[in-house]
Amino acid sequence: MKSLQQISVIGMGLLGASFTLTIKRSLSSVKTIGYSHRSVTRRKARDLGVADKVLDDISDCVSGSDLVILATPISAFEEIFIKINKSLKDGCIVTDVGSVKILPHRWARKHLSTTVRYVGSHPIAGSEKRGAEFARDDLFSNARCILTKTKNTDASALKTLKGLWREIGCEVSVLTPAEHDRIFARVSHVPHVTAVALVNANDPQVLKYAGKGFVDTSRLASGPQNIWTDILLTNSENTARGIEKVITELSRLQKAIENKNQKQIERLLTNARQKRLALIKYKLNKKQLQ
Amino acid sequence: MKSLQQISVIGMGLLGASFTLTIKRSLSSVKTIGYSHRSVTRRKARDLGVADKVLDDISDCVSGSDLVILATPISAFEEIFIKINKSLKDGCIVTDVGSVKILPHRWARKHLSTTVRYVGSHPIAGSEKRGAEFARDDLFSNARCILTKTKNTDASALKTLKGLWREIGCEVSVLTPAEHDRIFARVSHVPHVTAVALVNANDPQVLKYAGKGFVDTSRLASGPQNIWTDILLTNSENTARGIEKVITELSRLQKAIENKNQKQIERLLTNARQKRLALIKYKLNKKQLQ
Repeated sequence: MKSLQQISVIGMGLLGASFTLTIKRSLSSVKTIGYSHRSVTRRKARDLGVADKVLDDISDCVSGSDLVILATPISAFEEIFIKINKSLKDGCIVTDVGSVKILPHRWARKHLSTTVRYVGSHPIAGSEKRGAEFARDDLFSNARCILTKTKNTDASALKTLKGLWREIGCEVSVLTPAEHDRIFARVSHVPHVTAVALVNANDPQVLKYAGKGFVDTSRLASGPQNIWTDILLTNSENTARGIEKVITELSRLQKAIENKNQKQIERLLTNARQKRLALIKYKLNKKQLQ
Repeated sequence: MKSLQQISVIGMGLLGASFTLTIKRSLSSVKTIGYSHRSVTRRKARDLGVADKVLDDISDCVSGSDLVILATPISAFEEIFIKINKSLKDGCIVTDVGSVKILPHRWARKHLSTTVRYVGSHPIAGSEKRGAEFARDDLFSNARCILTKTKNTDASALKTLKGLWREIGCEVSVLTPAEHDRIFARVSHVPHVTAVALVNANDPQVLKYAGKGFVDTSRLASGPQNIWTDILLTNSENTARGIEKVITELSRLQKAIENKNQKQIERLLTNARQKRLALIKYKLNKKQLQ
């Protein structure tokens, strides 16, 4: 990691603060600088000591850094790119930790100078908890991290970033932004919407009878609505198409149930069961289910 | 529990064997007799000693008992009622542990003598594990148990059964079979179908990228397909109607996402979040989330 001597993180929430904390602990020669647009968050991050420095000005924060990471909601990215562009040093690598990748690539290409090298990152890590006070230096251990590249992506920037995420414990894969957004609509954004629909379909009086099954199936619906609204807005086409697929499968099951078609119900249930068992086996092998 | 001196359990799976084991441990003066139509299950139950006796003949099993509990898949209930009716002693209470209640009440009324008193039971307890070898004497501790009654239900049988489920740790509520099946379609059978649809909507290649969110949201899809086919077939109308409600909510979200209607997305997400937080608070207060 010789090429990275100073790393700046914009956004000191759970992910941003966990990232600086992890770097401080595992790559102590690297200087970490944090920024948040909220003074109360900056004060908290300073009190907790999650970064070497937390600055009041976003330009000062990124100035002279080898790597700048955006860890804010996705809807703030475009404005941040515009704000920081002039203060970025030549050759600086810019990345983010957002759950959507097509738009950040587009915004980076539109607003960042050609001397700056953007690569997308999506570490699959997080928690229901929010805020720097829950920052952990093991949040990225054994996590998956997807990097996204286009034909314009600088190969050495990609290599450096791969090395960094691996260094802090991630298993790294590389996808195009289009592949990433299609896949994560399916495995993350659509399940979120499904959990929301399941809760919204029920009255509070009925929900009092809910057991562990309902609680698990609906867990995602407790996620922060601002972050999720951002994700759904910035990956709208893929998510809408994925919802359509779930509606198709629900209708198929509904029809089989209405017709009391035992063979068809059994077939659909068996298909799901076998696919999910294969998934669990795969995840256990990869040690991704702790 | 003076009126219960001998209890028979038909079906020695996880629920049946846990029930006899719990009675043996907490009401040791009550004699427990088990039966399974499979000889290998009977042998296992005997070896494990989960009941005082495990008999080879279903008539011998129920003969002379004060309470008979069906703990088999629901689709076997009707035939079992027909088989055991002649061997039940006058005043015997018959119940079951099935997840659906309208049809068992109908079958009991059709096939059991008027001298026999049927009440429905649905203990909300279970596990992904199956079989007598996983029987636990604390499976019903702090569990909810719904009893179902119609205008024909004998009040003293209901009272005795209430007392028994409470004695082994359950929080008991009483509903009509129609209320029960409508509510449990919503909080259990539809979530199951939703989990199945979510898995079936995805290719195995895409599923490799699934994280904890998908794994939780789809957990129910790993349930045993024969038991769940039974439940869906015997509660088909309520389940089909509940699926329709989820499809309506999914379509509403899909439309808001397609139209990039930020306010509407936020409203739908906030609604679900608040409802679910209220549910979790309620369950934690009731100590039903361990």
